[in-house]
Amino acid sequence: MGDLGTVSHLNEVMAAEALAINDHLSQLMPATDGPEGRVVDAMRYAALEGGKRLRPFLVLQSAQLFSVSRACALNVAAAIEMIHCYSLIHDDLPAMDNDDLRRGRPTVHRQYDEPTAILAGDALLTKAFEVIALPGTHSDPAVRCDLVTELAIAAGAKGMVGGQMIDLMAERGLIDGALDVPAITRMHQLKTGRLISFSSIAGAILGKAPRSQRQALFNYAHDLGLAFQIADDLLDVEGDTATLGKTAGKDEASGKSTFVSLLGLERARDQADMLAEQAVNHLDAFDEKADLLRAVARFVVDRKS
Amino acid sequence: MGDLGTVSHLNEVMAAEALAINDHLSQLMPATDGPEGRVVDAMRYAALEGGKRLRPFLVLQSAQLFSVSRACALNVAAAIEMIHCYSLIHDDLPAMDNDDLRRGRPTVHRQYDEPTAILAGDALLTKAFEVIALPGTHSDPAVRCDLVTELAIAAGAKGMVGGQMIDLMAERGLIDGALDVPAITRMHQLKTGRLISFSSIAGAILGKAPRSQRQALFNYAHDLGLAFQIADDLLDVEGDTATLGKTAGKDEASGKSTFVSLLGLERARDQADMLAEQAVNHLDAFDEKADLLRAVARFVVDRKS
Repeated sequence: MGDLGTVSHLNEVMAAEALAINDHLSQLMPATDGPEGRVVDAMRYAALEGGKRLRPFLVLQSAQLFSVSRACALNVAAAIEMIHCYSLIHDDLPAMDNDDLRRGRPTVHRQYDEPTAILAGDALLTKAFEVIALPGTHSDPAVRCDLVTELAIAAGAKGMVGGQMIDLMAERGLIDGALDVPAITRMHQLKTGRLISFSSIAGAILGKAPRSQRQALFNYAHDLGLAFQIADDLLDVEGDTATLGKTAGKDEASGKSTFVSLLGLERARDQADMLAEQAVNHLDAFDEKADLLRAVARFVVDRKS
Repeated sequence: MGDLGTVSHLNEVMAAEALAINDHLSQLMPATDGPEGRVVDAMRYAALEGGKRLRPFLVLQSAQLFSVSRACALNVAAAIEMIHCYSLIHDDLPAMDNDDLRRGRPTVHRQYDEPTAILAGDALLTKAFEVIALPGTHSDPAVRCDLVTELAIAAGAKGMVGGQMIDLMAERGLIDGALDVPAITRMHQLKTGRLISFSSIAGAILGKAPRSQRQALFNYAHDLGLAFQIADDLLDVEGDTATLGKTAGKDEASGKSTFVSLLGLERARDQADMLAEQAVNHLDAFDEKADLLRAVARFVVDRKS
């Protein structure tokens, strides 16, 4: 794991899968006539093209471990990307992070307008659940219900939205004292970790895998998510806006506590590396079918954007 | 139908059911410790107390037609109210309708702040799907999936959100020419009609009723929803802010096309009455168990808030 061959193989597979996800998202959200077509345009603008498609990739890879049909996995992969994209649209709004740039292009409220961005986010969130509940997602409706439940919990007030709330409160000084490492860890586990966990266990749910395997993937995702976030904080300091496709140096400019501000660059880097290694160890029960998941752990800490 | 006895009985039952819905919503969204508790507080602020609870009432009444267990119906009733409340929170935002008052109290972004309002709306929308997918909503997961699908379609870009988009575009002059009666009818069918339809057919889905009965309820809801909307336009002209619990006279102030501006007060009133009667006619296949649904049709055109 981590050798040059694997990494370049991972990049190739991820790029190919990103195209497949794009196609599938496009099919699930065809452009619509009529005046309401504007919100569909904005959904497509936000969800198609760009992005590493990390979460859908995790879905596809975890589904492969259990020989889940690709058509089923693609639906779940598209749904999780819809959730991710909705959260970005709302996060970028003037009332939230007030960002102009995302994936190298104007954010949705810049390209369209604020109300369209709010509605496009709402519609993507809604569409994700529609897609999960489609018969094509799994022949067994109990599995589809399980996915709806897990996704809703991961995305809701005790998951992603809860994490966004903590993040915003910390930024605005509404939490007593600055966030320390445990508090920041918990915030990120909610804000980004829960969706990464959902993506990683989705294959096990689709494949009706034993609890122990679902748990192994959950543990993998836990460490992967945190490594991903620390790498994000590092990129905000070390990256540049052009490569990132979003504004660099925002954290420092806003005086925000991050893993880097709390631990320093070197310890933050060490921590990310250690977590990536730990993530890989959780996959010991799987054979070489999990090699790309192992490579992903390396990828998230080595990426440049 | 429509005599004084039935109307006062309806008011009593609706008031009692509103309390039951409130209790159930409160149980489904317990206040949460930790900094993310703020978003849960805002969800509870928006969803508990106030409101006619028309949509959940329709769910409970339609469920009763098919002898669905009350516990199941209450989950769906709560979910639809969560969707309704999320849409109000986002609709009231400064970037949308910029409203200060809702159900006689400050809107969520006034009581909390804009980011909290955006997130509380997102979390309510997400929670609705979590609740629908709960095993307690129906023992058959296929029924739960069916409900998720129907709700997502009703609430998404081709339903409620699509209607909001059209409404906003018309307000901002982004649609060529003013909306005429067919265009306004379609806008309202999307914006408010689809959720009212979902609420009305929910009992039929839960009770696995034959298609014809589901269709009868759908037709009932179609006319009910439109009658409801025309009554809303009439109230905006004839009502006062204190009774409405929201700002009156907004439509005229904004120069918006409404049924009243297009048809005049008298014809709009006649139209609402006719639709209410038509709605009742669609219930002919049901016995006296549907009497409160019949009374609801009268209620929506006679209400003062």
